[in-house]
Amino acid sequence: MKGNISAGVLLIGDEILSGRTQDANLKQIAEFLQPLGVPVKEARTVPDEQEAIVDAVRALSAAHDYVFTTGGIGPTHDDITADAMAAAFGRTIDVREDARAILEDWYARSGTQITEARLRMARIPDGASLIANPVTGAPGFQIENVFVMAGVPKITRGMLEDVAHRIEGGPVTHTVSVRLEDVREGDIAESLGALAQAHAEVSFGSYPWFEDNGGTLRRGVVLVARGRDEAFLDTLRGQLAALG
Amino acid sequence: MKGNISAGVLLIGDEILSGRTQDANLKQIAEFLQPLGVPVKEARTVPDEQEAIVDAVRALSAAHDYVFTTGGIGPTHDDITADAMAAAFGRTIDVREDARAILEDWYARSGTQITEARLRMARIPDGASLIANPVTGAPGFQIENVFVMAGVPKITRGMLEDVAHRIEGGPVTHTVSVRLEDVREGDIAESLGALAQAHAEVSFGSYPWFEDNGGTLRRGVVLVARGRDEAFLDTLRGQLAALG
Repeated sequence: MKGNISAGVLLIGDEILSGRTQDANLKQIAEFLQPLGVPVKEARTVPDEQEAIVDAVRALSAAHDYVFTTGGIGPTHDDITADAMAAAFGRTIDVREDARAILEDWYARSGTQITEARLRMARIPDGASLIANPVTGAPGFQIENVFVMAGVPKITRGMLEDVAHRIEGGPVTHTVSVRLEDVREGDIAESLGALAQAHAEVSFGSYPWFEDNGGTLRRGVVLVARGRDEAFLDTLRGQLAALG
Repeated sequence: MKGNISAGVLLIGDEILSGRTQDANLKQIAEFLQPLGVPVKEARTVPDEQEAIVDAVRALSAAHDYVFTTGGIGPTHDDITADAMAAAFGRTIDVREDARAILEDWYARSGTQITEARLRMARIPDGASLIANPVTGAPGFQIENVFVMAGVPKITRGMLEDVAHRIEGGPVTHTVSVRLEDVREGDIAESLGALAQAHAEVSFGSYPWFEDNGGTLRRGVVLVARGRDEAFLDTLRGQLAALG
């Protein structure tokens, strides 16, 4: 069922869907995975509701080699991701001694008291392996092909460091991009299409941009070519620039 | 099947999944819908691939009252959203005269030639109604409960103006939020949980933040309460602040 290696991303949290918070994790996870040869092929954002989390993680886990989730593993009542993961994969869940030991050690060093709420962060599904959190201590975890991480981008980034060695990637995809000014997509669409037909192994994209600098409107297009042969991609740079 | 009114968002584009582009449309669509009483309950991001677009829009269209898509309706070869929408809903698609007239009029005013590539932007599924584009002319369209819009955020924003009058919303959800400094989630989790239990009709969220200002690390929590009774939410502000 799985051909090329791919990843799915699951962003969990009412605050992203309401527009209160601008997600930054999809971009940082994609940038982290790119040099490992694991392209992100799908992302979903769901609210802090168990059924929505369970359905989405099951679908993504079945469709992709790896899944990365962010959000919902803190100490408050709306942090339900760990329990949802246990439900999705039919595991029991409770405070686990290895996670509790990490929290106790972390809080002992900072003189913080472990409360019942903080112990929620040691609830880890049976059989999951922990993911180290170098920023605030409380661990994430890996369950099957799913990496469950915190939602605060700095903590997510820290946890990814303990994920890289668990990933078996594929061939790395490289990118060249060329920014054209004073060009509209319609001006270059036909020649870009011809280039795409001539090089089926390269994926070409075209992204219009607009800038308004104190009343002066400028526009243009960024052309992107993506493929596995870095040297060949480099030779395309001139051809893309010549379209402008 | 549909209880409360809800919306799904479908972001279409390789550039978002690769991390090259930071999506800004989910946030702006959610903020646009909030005062209309239509909460976004799910978002998906898919690549520029017909099967992925078709599967996602069918799933979202069945699960939500309204769906908003962005991206893939320009003039280049990788712009396949219109054809994918036609396929998803079993419609024929061709250059439509009403859309062609809009383009001809727009380009006549700017002295631009209509090319075959630009005419691609007049390909509209049979039976869809057009969405005006005040920024660059080429229209979006509505097909069943799906609003198909451009991906460049300024154009998306412009198209939303022609969408508002087609939306029948529900009761508006209001929000109050309180920013606490020098507090950790673990410090307030229990009292916040008690507050949430006491007011089941209000949804409470807690979002930790970290700031590093030239070496001085600051941390805190933003507490959010969300509900339909604005006056009552206002009375919660003091209780949330008192948790800090």
